[in-house]
Amino acid sequence: MSSTEYQVDRRELQFVVNETLGAGKLCELPDFSEFDEEMFTMIINEASNFSEQVLAPLNENGDRQGCRIENDSVITPDGFANAWEQFGKGGWLSMNLPPEYGGQGLPEVITIIGKETQLAANQGFTIGASLTSGAANLIYTFGSEEQKNNFCEKMFSGTWSGSMCLTESHAGTAVGDTTTNATKQNTGHYLIKGTKQFITNGDHDMADNIIHLLLARTTDAPKGTKGISLFIVPKIRLDGTPNDVKILSIEHKMGINGSPTCLLSFGENNDCQGYLLKAENMGMSQMFQLMNEARLLVGLQGLAGAGAAVQNALAYAKERTQGPSAVHPGEKALIIEFPDVRRMLMQMKAVTEGLRALMYTTAWYTDMANHGPEESREKYQDLLDLHIPICKSFGTDQGSEVANLGIQVLGGVGFTKDFPLEQNVRDQKIGSIYEGTNGIQALDLVGRKFNTKNGQLLKVLLDELCWFDQHSPEGELKGWVAEWETYSILMQKCIASLKKTGEAEGKDGYVLYASNMLDLMGDVLCCFYLLKQAVSAQKKWNSMLIGTASQAELLEENEEAQFYWNKLRTTEFYVWSVLPRALSNAKTINNANLAPLRASL
Amino acid sequence: MSSTEYQVDRRELQFVVNETLGAGKLCELPDFSEFDEEMFTMIINEASNFSEQVLAPLNENGDRQGCRIENDSVITPDGFANAWEQFGKGGWLSMNLPPEYGGQGLPEVITIIGKETQLAANQGFTIGASLTSGAANLIYTFGSEEQKNNFCEKMFSGTWSGSMCLTESHAGTAVGDTTTNATKQNTGHYLIKGTKQFITNGDHDMADNIIHLLLARTTDAPKGTKGISLFIVPKIRLDGTPNDVKILSIEHKMGINGSPTCLLSFGENNDCQGYLLKAENMGMSQMFQLMNEARLLVGLQGLAGAGAAVQNALAYAKERTQGPSAVHPGEKALIIEFPDVRRMLMQMKAVTEGLRALMYTTAWYTDMANHGPEESREKYQDLLDLHIPICKSFGTDQGSEVANLGIQVLGGVGFTKDFPLEQNVRDQKIGSIYEGTNGIQALDLVGRKFNTKNGQLLKVLLDELCWFDQHSPEGELKGWVAEWETYSILMQKCIASLKKTGEAEGKDGYVLYASNMLDLMGDVLCCFYLLKQAVSAQKKWNSMLIGTASQAELLEENEEAQFYWNKLRTTEFYVWSVLPRALSNAKTINNANLAPLRASL
Repeated sequence: MSSTEYQVDRRELQFVVNETLGAGKLCELPDFSEFDEEMFTMIINEASNFSEQVLAPLNENGDRQGCRIENDSVITPDGFANAWEQFGKGGWLSMNLPPEYGGQGLPEVITIIGKETQLAANQGFTIGASLTSGAANLIYTFGSEEQKNNFCEKMFSGTWSGSMCLTESHAGTAVGDTTTNATKQNTGHYLIKGTKQFITNGDHDMADNIIHLLLARTTDAPKGTKGISLFIVPKIRLDGTPNDVKILSIEHKMGINGSPTCLLSFGENNDCQGYLLKAENMGMSQMFQLMNEARLLVGLQGLAGAGAAVQNALAYAKERTQGPSAVHPGEKALIIEFPDVRRMLMQMKAVTEGLRALMYTTAWYTDMANHGPEESREKYQDLLDLHIPICKSFGTDQGSEVANLGIQVLGGVGFTKDFPLEQNVRDQKIGSIYEGTNGIQALDLVGRKFNTKNGQLLKVLLDELCWFDQHSPEGELKGWVAEWETYSILMQKCIASLKKTGEAEGKDGYVLYASNMLDLMGDVLCCFYLLKQAVSAQKKWNSMLIGTASQAELLEENEEAQFYWNKLRTTEFYVWSVLPRALSNAKTINNANLAPLRASL
Repeated sequence: MSSTEYQVDRRELQFVVNETLGAGKLCELPDFSEFDEEMFTMIINEASNFSEQVLAPLNENGDRQGCRIENDSVITPDGFANAWEQFGKGGWLSMNLPPEYGGQGLPEVITIIGKETQLAANQGFTIGASLTSGAANLIYTFGSEEQKNNFCEKMFSGTWSGSMCLTESHAGTAVGDTTTNATKQNTGHYLIKGTKQFITNGDHDMADNIIHLLLARTTDAPKGTKGISLFIVPKIRLDGTPNDVKILSIEHKMGINGSPTCLLSFGENNDCQGYLLKAENMGMSQMFQLMNEARLLVGLQGLAGAGAAVQNALAYAKERTQGPSAVHPGEKALIIEFPDVRRMLMQMKAVTEGLRALMYTTAWYTDMANHGPEESREKYQDLLDLHIPICKSFGTDQGSEVANLGIQVLGGVGFTKDFPLEQNVRDQKIGSIYEGTNGIQALDLVGRKFNTKNGQLLKVLLDELCWFDQHSPEGELKGWVAEWETYSILMQKCIASLKKTGEAEGKDGYVLYASNMLDLMGDVLCCFYLLKQAVSAQKKWNSMLIGTASQAELLEENEEAQFYWNKLRTTEFYVWSVLPRALSNAKTINNANLAPLRASL
């Protein structure tokens, strides 16, 4: 492959999903009994083909051409409407949605393959497209039979698209300050009035209708988040007449330019009809139920961007020459021969594979929480709830860092628009902001999740982290696991230290270094899941080594052997060269310096 | 000030330059005897006014409009030509250049004020403009009397501009692979033939002529860097006829769009005249002499971007409300009330002030090395040589991180082009790449500088770091200095550990974690210079506290007191919440994992 195209690493996905997570075992569960591992392998291939062949070719133009408003409608970049149609018809929109309305009913751990490869191929297209799944799922989960019949099938197939209308100009993080109002009419529907900001795919030309899921406040609703209700607000009503929804403007952004970010006005002419989802004042709890999925998706944006960056940088480093080679005297050096370039590539690769291990495992927890044996569902839900803010925040921060390192590997050309990394970095930057800023994720982690059910979530996690007690590592893994365990213990000490700070300094002191706590956990968890993968890789590698003349010969000839060898190397690198970041976060948490609260800013 | 404008922090510059570095004392040196501290204060004001009033207003349009080629010439954004004229006439181009040809002859520690504020106001304009100083300085340093008379005055005043033509498509880092050739003619000049890439301000419409300083290889020159010569190649010859220089294209980049990055062809019609600078094969050593200045400038780009980001983010955090206030019940909260926002702002502020302390001290070392008492010049040159790669690499990496944090403080709007942070991040990204990538800086530090004169540079640094032995810290500074000293010792241990790795694993092992070593030193040095500043701040703060009812009252009323208080808080924060990053780098260096060299990438 070249340094300008995107090609899915099918081997890595196969390894993560089938060889280490053992997704095939999910097929023993009643909800997934119609699938088998072979089908999962087929889906890896099909998803990869779709992302490579349909979405990737539209990525660059999506950025350059961007979206525009013409005649009060948003026009998306050339080819997006056609890709949308294929996206819907191919079932990519409904991978994890219920078969009842035409969904594929696939496990999350398989659905995530579609999402990662689509995001890696085209962040602008996919971020918008994925919101339709979420909106449709909300209607499926909370809608009346009539609502489900009216909307689900059309949304599952992409005939209609969806949008999430939460933010207002004064109400972003503080969603309780929503002022858009909904007035009940005798006919049963509500009249919606208000303005919503930052609405991804709030208007476009790709589907026949747009179904907005909108947060609004009904008459005499309680203040704050308790008084928010969720409404279905179609752009075009079911009888075919236009609803009173108007596009005011689109944002000019750093990236994801293929995705229109809209300022929408509802009810300018007092004629915007909305249909209540289930009951009044349930909006927040309804949003919460879909939050895990949405936040994992944004985390995936970071992983996907990182994965694409690794490929582009690796390919460039293998084709670009510079100066004389020390390895092949007389020849020019490929820049991949230089230690500093190799260090950057390993950093990129190790962090990306760590994130993938983290997020695919989190997807697997989702499946076990929703479809697994009844007796273990709570445990997996606890793990899931604890992992989500880490996936979102650590995933997007690290994804950006990896892509920025990719530009560094390319050097001067990396800063130009001739290579996709430039766009990758700009597209990814939004990930740390939307769907709850990363600061909010850290608060969610230490403020909410640490304290849920008297700390039960943390206890479940610590049990999980004892996995190596039952699975003794062998050979070189012994030392790696032992080293990782020191960090795992450090993490526990920091959690205790944080609580102590909270007791001494109050809530502000407790949350001040929440982000450091989240990052520390991110590294400990990514490394843990990589080490589990390394156990599988080591077994395969050792078995291949039997009967081979030498390690060097095996590596020379055998791509499979190379894969397992490299998986061991990235794990090793994470333990000794990435994990040390946790020391920095730990020290900062323990120092608990209060200067930010005392400074006269 | 607002979150969209740039306003120089005059108070901080005054503190750094006059109150802590004591720039006034430089006026006791013969070369600066015509200046005094009052004049320096005046220059702080004038430089600030120029940057705020002339350059900052052109920044956004410079990015949006960018540069274009029309009729084989580059057209710069509206207003740039006019700003250029003022830049030259106002003496901003020649602040540190010799008075002999119309320069201002100012110390570097004052010149840097102009550069920082100009870069903060408009990176695209300033990066290009600053190259003229460098090119002019090369001619002044190595040119014949005739060359100096022909070029210096016109370049010092900006009537003519300069460019540096080093890179070729296959010769970036490996400048020794230059193939552009120069053939000596009987008339004394050379005929130049070749193509140069990534030439900042290689063509434009701002000055009457462009004087290219170009690296080329003369006939039968030795291979590699030893056979490179430096030529003056004017766009228009001294007799007014056009030289054979052609603009082929300009790059489409992530940022600094106000600055044209050109692909230039020299001698397509075998008629490109170049004039040798001093002697053949001196090109590399000539470039080296100007390298410190150029690399400090790029480091400054990071500092300047960071400084602008701090301002924008602080201003936004003080005007943006979100949710209910915990501090003022019943009112909306300003987001600056939230601990996580305060943590981010402190991180931005502490790192920025640390970088400023580092770079202004480095500028002061430059003055002492070039103009100080003869007996101490070598010492300051050693310190300078050791500091430069750190200023360049740590400055640009940290500058990018600070600006990215700024976007995070703004949240959703930070990702839009409505606020200058979006452009700031894109503009800065180039800093880690050009003028020697940051990886090259790290190699320069550990490969070259550590070993120069048998490790003399490090010895001089360690002497310097003993400053607190002679200046015992008082009060709260005692604990901070003691803590910092543990990191200073850690740094020394890591240098030893790195050497040991080199002995055991060879050169590749030695340089593998050079970047971590550089980052570690960056944190230790920034914190050291901040602590020295804190000594001054503490004295002022304590003297203001005398006779005041309470600390709170003093802070409430007195902006000066606030300034000194905050300087102490940012220093404190650096010690306890930023410096811990050094632990991560130290551990990675000590672990010395070789997976990057062993992986089958």
